[in-house]
Amino acid sequence: MGRLRLRIAISLDGFVAGPRQSVQDPLGVGGMRLHEWAFALEAFRRMHGLSGGEVNASTPVIEEAFANLGATVMGRHMFGGQPGPWSLEKPWNGWWGNDPPFHHPVFVVTHHPREPLTLAGGTTFTFVTAGVEAALEQARRAAGDKDVALGGGAQTARRCLTAGLVDDMELSLVPVLLGSGERLFEGIGTDLHGLELTRTVAAPRVTHLKFARR
Amino acid sequence: MGRLRLRIAISLDGFVAGPRQSVQDPLGVGGMRLHEWAFALEAFRRMHGLSGGEVNASTPVIEEAFANLGATVMGRHMFGGQPGPWSLEKPWNGWWGNDPPFHHPVFVVTHHPREPLTLAGGTTFTFVTAGVEAALEQARRAAGDKDVALGGGAQTARRCLTAGLVDDMELSLVPVLLGSGERLFEGIGTDLHGLELTRTVAAPRVTHLKFARR
Repeated sequence: MGRLRLRIAISLDGFVAGPRQSVQDPLGVGGMRLHEWAFALEAFRRMHGLSGGEVNASTPVIEEAFANLGATVMGRHMFGGQPGPWSLEKPWNGWWGNDPPFHHPVFVVTHHPREPLTLAGGTTFTFVTAGVEAALEQARRAAGDKDVALGGGAQTARRCLTAGLVDDMELSLVPVLLGSGERLFEGIGTDLHGLELTRTVAAPRVTHLKFARR
Repeated sequence: MGRLRLRIAISLDGFVAGPRQSVQDPLGVGGMRLHEWAFALEAFRRMHGLSGGEVNASTPVIEEAFANLGATVMGRHMFGGQPGPWSLEKPWNGWWGNDPPFHHPVFVVTHHPREPLTLAGGTTFTFVTAGVEAALEQARRAAGDKDVALGGGAQTARRCLTAGLVDDMELSLVPVLLGSGERLFEGIGTDLHGLELTRTVAAPRVTHLKFARR
């Protein structure tokens, strides 16, 4: 069975999204600052169909993060911030456009049932209403021997961390303050469930801290 | 003029002290876990009059942290947790014993006036009631060309960070969760006042992140 891997960018003050998240501003005020190091990378841009960009110490980290993934689990907010039940007249397809960068099955944890969504490039979105553990079980089955990515957001990540389900956690620590917003480590107690710091990579504008369950 | 340098250990979830700090438990529940990497170091033990210990990647960091210091500023809680005015009958000498490890003038920010305290090994404690800026001014004068250490605790550190007074900040990030307690970056907004990440050192049980104002 593959591993459940969480990769998430976090500010110096512990936020993974800024304040006042909305459909218009999904990362919240200042939240984009957490991802500038990634957007600048050649490897990241290539995976999203763009050319150009930098090669630096983050390159192998991001390549590893996207390698050997067979499925992704994400929360409703990460799929797309539309509140309430899905509208049948105007079905929201999330942030990800018509050719999302996953290229594998994605399982979205939501309270609202919806038919699966098949998009270009091998990405399917399946909507799971039975909770994050059920979504994870479906994702593991879809992934086979490969790993499952825990895409976020914070709420789904916290749920998996608290339940001790995360096998690998790559925190990309960005040396900025967001001041407020959504904290990754909020109300999850003191137990890392065996996750230990196994690698630190200092890169331009970011420090990558890799945790693994031994 | 020397630089104002903050060195502080911080948990993965952003706490510099655990919950329920008291005279008996000055670091709060679990707070000691933030300092185990330091207590294990030969360099740290030597500075505190102890023998033995490890030499590892933290050694040059801790040696640098204690070098070229001419004075220290700290808050009342860091000096010693006794609440209320100083008792004349039983004057509390803080946590630091009769031969504190500073060996230079220390300025304690407090609301309660008290006569200076001269201890063995060149450490004097001067109690400043006119606020942290006044304490800092006295410390700078005492330090001459040398630097001033900002000893903490969190409240004093936040005050100096918010005022843009900190020139160097070494965060020793310990990969544990404290769950609750006192956060360093709480209510200080989004401005690092020009502090930029300039060095990352991965060491056993800790990652040192050095920020400097360029």
